Amino acid sequence: MTIKELQDYLAKEFDIHFDNPDLLAEAFTQASYVNEHPNQGLKFYERIEFLGDAVLELIVSEYIYKRYPELPQGKLTRLRAAMVCEDSFSKFAKECHFDQYIRLGHGEELAGARQRPGLLCDIFESFVGALYLDQGRPAVEKFVRRVIFPKLDMGWFDHAVDAKTSLQEFLQRNGDVKIEYHLLSESGTENEPVFKVNVSANDKVIGEGVGSSKKHAEMQAAVQALHKLRAQQN
Amino acid sequence: MTIKELQDYLAKEFDIHFDNPDLLAEAFTQASYVNEHPNQGLKFYERIEFLGDAVLELIVSEYIYKRYPELPQGKLTRLRAAMVCEDSFSKFAKECHFDQYIRLGHGEELAGARQRPGLLCDIFESFVGALYLDQGRPAVEKFVRRVIFPKLDMGWFDHAVDAKTSLQEFLQRNGDVKIEYHLLSESGTENEPVFKVNVSANDKVIGEGVGSSKKHAEMQAAVQALHKLRAQQN
Repeated sequence: MTIKELQDYLAKEFDIHFDNPDLLAEAFTQASYVNEHPNQGLKFYERIEFLGDAVLELIVSEYIYKRYPELPQGKLTRLRAAMVCEDSFSKFAKECHFDQYIRLGHGEELAGARQRPGLLCDIFESFVGALYLDQGRPAVEKFVRRVIFPKLDMGWFDHAVDAKTSLQEFLQRNGDVKIEYHLLSESGTENEPVFKVNVSANDKVIGEGVGSSKKHAEMQAAVQALHKLRAQQN
Repeated sequence: MTIKELQDYLAKEFDIHFDNPDLLAEAFTQASYVNEHPNQGLKFYERIEFLGDAVLELIVSEYIYKRYPELPQGKLTRLRAAMVCEDSFSKFAKECHFDQYIRLGHGEELAGARQRPGLLCDIFESFVGALYLDQGRPAVEKFVRRVIFPKLDMGWFDHAVDAKTSLQEFLQRNGDVKIEYHLLSESGTENEPVFKVNVSANDKVIGEGVGSSKKHAEMQAAVQALHKLRAQQN
């Protein structure tokens, strides 16, 4: 696929129109391709990726800082690390079909580089860097609001924030909601106790959980509630 | 020192005027102070520091990306790491006299926390985070242009970028300059050779260096030239 096709795809799919297509070309070109096409003055993506990485770091940081006003720094840091990482970015790159447009040398192509998470992650960052340089921060925010932020609601990063925090954030997005956890029963033996708990939102039960501690049971109840709420949403 | 005094100091010294002094107070308050003043609804700096860290990372990244258009990614990354780190930020905080305004609990005060580089670094980041939230990015850029960027010219980060690159960047800030290294002599023995080299800018010799390899001698010549040029500048 050519850079021209990439431009058309970005215009159609994301309403993104580069003023300087050379920046876009640079963002999608690996060093191996430059080496195979000498004397054409081509550049490869690494410098733009350096910038894109910092752009993503700030936009994600600012978003979660504002979205989770009660989340302490440690959890913000964990959440950011889960969002701004090779695993996430390589998936976003695939979802955006960026893999199809990377310009690789033959050797790298044969070695399967096009599907390598490390490269996909780099290209996602370099694309964002190029978009930032060419169209400014609002364009990046628009792109990120579509590609990254919805994954928070889809539970992609729940492992980084505990389920009780996620549930609270989910329920209180549109205003205050009273969330309560109730101990329903305590059974089992002294060495192997079993706690049963439910969670309610404005006095309506929305989930139940069982665990070997009250805290663990509450977590399970929150996980179940989130699961149901998200299923209803879709 | 009080937050009111900090506001006055920032106004006088940096022409910075906070709309929301609570943000400024949060940025200069350590958890130990909040613990000693319960029921006042105080917040401590950690969340704002989380944001300030990402703000500084992007502004520094963008600045060096544009300032060093030929620097490859690896060197950009090394340079950024030298600039965006506890060692640098704690020095900037001291230079800005921020240490005087931190609100600490008694125990931390007695333990000498006020001069601890880790805390000073945190406060520098949290100040920037608060400034960003309250006054927006241009205000942060103005502050950083005064406090951080001049250190590049002063050679603070030369260890992160090699001296030949630094010299080139220094000389070519205001347009193209012809830089040449000339081998003056080769002496010593085969096992312990001694190379003597000079460096010229537009045919005028500006530095000399000696080393056990040509490359090392050139580095020394660049270091000497930078040293002289910077002395002339001041």
